[in-house]
Amino acid sequence: MKTLRFQDIIAARKIVARFLKETPLIHYPELSERLGFQAYIKHENHNTTGSFKVRGGVNFMHHLPEAQRKKGVITATRGNHGQSIAYAAAQFGVKATVVVPYGNNPEKNSAMRAFGAELIEHGADFDQALALCEKLQAERGLYYVHPCMELALFHGVGTYSLEIFESLPDVDAIIVPIGGGSGCCGAITVSKAINPNVKVIGVQAENASAFYRSWKAGMRIETDSCDTIADGLATRAPFPMPLSIIKKGIHDMVLVSEAELQEGMRSALRWTHNLAEGAGAAPLAGAHKLTDMLAGKNVVMVMSGGNLDTETLKSVLGTC
Amino acid sequence: MKTLRFQDIIAARKIVARFLKETPLIHYPELSERLGFQAYIKHENHNTTGSFKVRGGVNFMHHLPEAQRKKGVITATRGNHGQSIAYAAAQFGVKATVVVPYGNNPEKNSAMRAFGAELIEHGADFDQALALCEKLQAERGLYYVHPCMELALFHGVGTYSLEIFESLPDVDAIIVPIGGGSGCCGAITVSKAINPNVKVIGVQAENASAFYRSWKAGMRIETDSCDTIADGLATRAPFPMPLSIIKKGIHDMVLVSEAELQEGMRSALRWTHNLAEGAGAAPLAGAHKLTDMLAGKNVVMVMSGGNLDTETLKSVLGTC
Repeated sequence: MKTLRFQDIIAARKIVARFLKETPLIHYPELSERLGFQAYIKHENHNTTGSFKVRGGVNFMHHLPEAQRKKGVITATRGNHGQSIAYAAAQFGVKATVVVPYGNNPEKNSAMRAFGAELIEHGADFDQALALCEKLQAERGLYYVHPCMELALFHGVGTYSLEIFESLPDVDAIIVPIGGGSGCCGAITVSKAINPNVKVIGVQAENASAFYRSWKAGMRIETDSCDTIADGLATRAPFPMPLSIIKKGIHDMVLVSEAELQEGMRSALRWTHNLAEGAGAAPLAGAHKLTDMLAGKNVVMVMSGGNLDTETLKSVLGTC
Repeated sequence: MKTLRFQDIIAARKIVARFLKETPLIHYPELSERLGFQAYIKHENHNTTGSFKVRGGVNFMHHLPEAQRKKGVITATRGNHGQSIAYAAAQFGVKATVVVPYGNNPEKNSAMRAFGAELIEHGADFDQALALCEKLQAERGLYYVHPCMELALFHGVGTYSLEIFESLPDVDAIIVPIGGGSGCCGAITVSKAINPNVKVIGVQAENASAFYRSWKAGMRIETDSCDTIADGLATRAPFPMPLSIIKKGIHDMVLVSEAELQEGMRSALRWTHNLAEGAGAAPLAGAHKLTDMLAGKNVVMVMSGGNLDTETLKSVLGTC
C-alpha cells in the first residue's frame, strides 16, 4: 500500500504556495484563559474555497500528466472536495466534472459551478452519484479523483501542518477533525518528522465514529450511518491507507455529540468571530474534554472549513 | 495641518509586516455574477484583532519614543481602536490604559483585557469616557492616542491599500466604509500615487452621514446623532484632516440604510462565509447601488472588521 511521505509534503509546500496564501495561525487570549492552554487556531477556513481541501486540489492538479489534463477530471462529492477540484482545475485550465446527488446543498453546488466546473446532479445518495461518476469516467476518458485514495491530495493537505510548525515551532499538540482522514494524516506525518513529541489528537462525531471505533478496536469498522451536522465528518467507511496511518500515529481521539458540535460552532462565532462549519468547529467542540491533558501547553486547533449555509447557521444559533 | 504622505505608508509596510500577516484578497465568482463586476474582498476581518485598525496600532507604537513607551499610553474607545492599541502595546511591552463608557459591549471589553490592557469603565457615554481619559493622561504622564488625529495610525492603516495594489495591479475601484476616515484616506493616498484612475468609493450609514453630508455641502457638517448598528461607522463629527483628504480625493460616496447594512451582513455570511460587523459589510451593502458605474470592472470591497457579537448576529439573522 502506497502511503504518505514527508518529503512529498515538503515538496508540495512550494506548489501550494504558488496558488494559495499561507493561512493565519492566530493566538486567542480569551479562549486560552477559558481552556487553560495557549489556544491557537489554524484558519483553514480562510482559504479561497473556504476549506483546507483546496491545498490537495492544486497539488494533485500540478502532478497530473499533461495528456490527462487535456482530457479532464471527474469526481463525486457533497461539498468541499468538489470545490477544491473545481478551483484547482480552473487554475490549470482543466475541465472538471463534478457529480453530486439530488438534494445536495444548493449553495455548495452553485459555488462549484461558479469555479467553472460542470455539475451533474444524479442519484438519490452519494453512492449513486459515485456510480455515475465511474461510468462517465470510463466513457469520457476522464481521470477520477478519489478523495480518500489520491496521495497527491494528502500531500497537499499536509502543508497546513508544515505551516503550523513554521509559525509555532514550540507547538505541543494539534487537534484535528477527522472525516476522510487526510488532514489528520498530514498532521501525524509532519509531526513525526519534525517533533515526535507533538501530540496529534483527532475529533470525530459520535454519529460518525468509524475511525474512532476502528482505532479502539484495532480493526477496520464501518458504521451503518453517519448522520451529523458536520458533513465534513460524515464518513461511514474509513479507507485503509488513512486508517493505517491514524491507528499508528494518533495520540488520542475524542468523540463529540451533535449538541457539542453546535456549541463548538457558537464558540467559533463568539470567541474567534469566525463562521466555522461543523467539522471546522469540531476541535473547539472537543477541546474542553482535553483540558487536563493539555493544561498550559501550546495547542493548535485546526478550523478546517467555514462553508456553512445560512439556514444551518440560524438553526445552530437556536433561533429558528 | 499635517497630512498623510504616501512615503510614510510605504515605510509602514515593513513595520506592519513584522507583526501582522498580509490579509487575503479573495475573488468571489458567485458574488461577481450577482453584482456584474469582478468582486474581490480584502479580508481585514482576518487580522489578529478582527479589524484593520491594528495596522495603525503597531505602526504607531513603533514610532513612539522609547521614553514615552516606558510611561505608557491611554485611549478612549468603544471597540476596534482599543483592541488595536491593546494588542500593539502588548507587542512592544507598553502599558495600555483604555477607557470605555459604562454599558460598552462586554465582549469587546474582555477582548481588550485579554490583550493585557487596563480597562477603566467610566461615564455614561463616549464623551465622558474621553474626559476621564484626558484627565488621566495629564495625571499619569501617559500618551493619549487619538484615533482620528494620530498620523502614524493612518499610515499603518494605509498598508491594506498597498497590499491591494500588490495583489491586484489592475484594480479599477476600491469600496471602503467610512467611519473615522482612516481607511478611506489610505485608499485615496495610495491610489493617487500608484494609479489615479482607480476610483475610491466611500460608504456611510444613513444614520451616521457626517462625511457624506460634508462632502455634498463642501463644508464640515456635524450630525446630531450617529445611531447605527455599524459602530465602526458611528461618527458624528468628522475630523478636519481626514475630511480634507476625502473631500478632495473621493470619487463617489453612497449611503446605506440600517436594513441595507443588515442585508450586507447576511450577504457576507451567505456569499463569503465570513462574519462581518456592520462597517465591514457596508461595502457589500452599498455595492448594488454602484453596479452601473462598476459593470465589468475589478472591484475590491474592504471588509474592514468582523467583531460582531452573537446577540447582534442573531438579530441580524432575523431570528430573535
